[in-house]
Amino acid sequence: MDLDVPTGTPAAVPTPQPGDPRLARLSLNQKTVNRLGVAEATDLCVRHGFGAIGLWREPVAEIGTARAARLVRDAGLRVSSLCRGGFLTAADEAGRTAALDDNRRAIDEAAALGTDTLVLVVGGLPAGSRDLAGARQRVADALAVLVPVAADAGVRLALEPMHPMFCADRGVLSTMEQSLAVAAPYPASQVGVVVDTYHVWWDPAAYQQIARAAGRIASFQVCDWVVPLPADTLLGRGMMGDGTIDFRSFRRAVDAAGYDGDIEVEIFNADVWAADPDAVAATVARRYVTEVLD
Amino acid sequence: MDLDVPTGTPAAVPTPQPGDPRLARLSLNQKTVNRLGVAEATDLCVRHGFGAIGLWREPVAEIGTARAARLVRDAGLRVSSLCRGGFLTAADEAGRTAALDDNRRAIDEAAALGTDTLVLVVGGLPAGSRDLAGARQRVADALAVLVPVAADAGVRLALEPMHPMFCADRGVLSTMEQSLAVAAPYPASQVGVVVDTYHVWWDPAAYQQIARAAGRIASFQVCDWVVPLPADTLLGRGMMGDGTIDFRSFRRAVDAAGYDGDIEVEIFNADVWAADPDAVAATVARRYVTEVLD
Repeated sequence: MDLDVPTGTPAAVPTPQPGDPRLARLSLNQKTVNRLGVAEATDLCVRHGFGAIGLWREPVAEIGTARAARLVRDAGLRVSSLCRGGFLTAADEAGRTAALDDNRRAIDEAAALGTDTLVLVVGGLPAGSRDLAGARQRVADALAVLVPVAADAGVRLALEPMHPMFCADRGVLSTMEQSLAVAAPYPASQVGVVVDTYHVWWDPAAYQQIARAAGRIASFQVCDWVVPLPADTLLGRGMMGDGTIDFRSFRRAVDAAGYDGDIEVEIFNADVWAADPDAVAATVARRYVTEVLD
Repeated sequence: MDLDVPTGTPAAVPTPQPGDPRLARLSLNQKTVNRLGVAEATDLCVRHGFGAIGLWREPVAEIGTARAARLVRDAGLRVSSLCRGGFLTAADEAGRTAALDDNRRAIDEAAALGTDTLVLVVGGLPAGSRDLAGARQRVADALAVLVPVAADAGVRLALEPMHPMFCADRGVLSTMEQSLAVAAPYPASQVGVVVDTYHVWWDPAAYQQIARAAGRIASFQVCDWVVPLPADTLLGRGMMGDGTIDFRSFRRAVDAAGYDGDIEVEIFNADVWAADPDAVAATVARRYVTEVLD
């Protein structure tokens, strides 16, 4: 009998096999199998019949963008997104310039990898700063510079609202509503938003804002909220079904808003990372059909 | 030279002494000096010239409500609030009944202690539940039962929006806006909201919602957001000035909304709890004048 990871509980359903149409939109964000490089993660996706992969810049850099692009293309996978650009809140000129340069590189990498979606984690407060409104304004200011660059490259910038737990140190965009306001000056084809269940599940306005986001949803990411939080709150994300999030309602809401792109499973979790990647991929496929699909 | 706790850094200003008019609205929430009973915490407040104390039910129960009430009254302190009622999200009849009974007792205790403010931490999701909308509805349903009871006792129920980090396991009211919506059916004199900087500082709508809350602000609590969060996120609260919150802007906003009640310092923090309570109180007084007042 198959066991789900990391819980070790018996699988509730047979593992969907490659070719199963239910897997068509399923994407494995590379971070879910953090130990694997691009080649190994690509092989894993193919072996398990996933339609797409979400890549991260650091492992891509390890083998070079061109080689990573070829690997994924030759494997027949879509690249659902590239994580990540952003960190646009520096208050000093040098920091601002460095961030813009880094984001220009990220845009080029996204284009080279054949994805139209660059996820932006916008950054937290600069050290010692308490000027949250100022940090949020600098994100908007940086977008004004980056959007034309991205548009020229055929890349859409995907603003990711982050759970308010990360407001100080990671992302000052805290809600869908706020992200949509920052995106509003630009065409939906150039600036979208990420709906990550982990970040938005608590928001009383989440469903309403997803409906408002029609046409702007650039990425839909799933993972569960599990309590208690671990010592490193960055690693608190759980396998779908292990926590408190009602994924089906979110999936239906993004569907109803017209989103028909890939559904990325992105799990930062030390226990998931320690598990056998094939067991992780098989659990992801099972939980995806039992928790996310109808 | 005085040192601030828990940082150990030199005090930036002389410690305001008892009788200093700047301390008139300052209240020490008992939880900030978690080791002290009601008598010791009351003495501490008097010794440092605080105008009020925020009490918790558990230490009050240790000596009995009548005795606690007498101690605080004889000391000439106001009771700025009683923490806490709530936990109203049980989905089963037995749990619901037990919670309502407990809240009726809390209302009686608040009245006996001479405070008109009972803080409600509304509760998280029941074990195994993913029905966040249902849990939120049950809070509203329980309020319908409790508001008349509280009104008869001359106690105002103070809904505390909790940081979304606590949505699953502690409080499903996550924003001021949502709390105001739950309070809206009732007179402002019967149901108010708590503005706790720790819970609301990240909210893009915080200032707008504080303005909307005019007349409903039942309590203003301050403590800082310090990163990284500790292993137990409940204990992540910091001394004002040690983190990322702009207290002065929040204090001005609640002032502008007409709030003229006590300003409670409520810090859950293992390092603060381990420090000498007199050093904690002195630091609170100094940081209050440098960080919160103009």
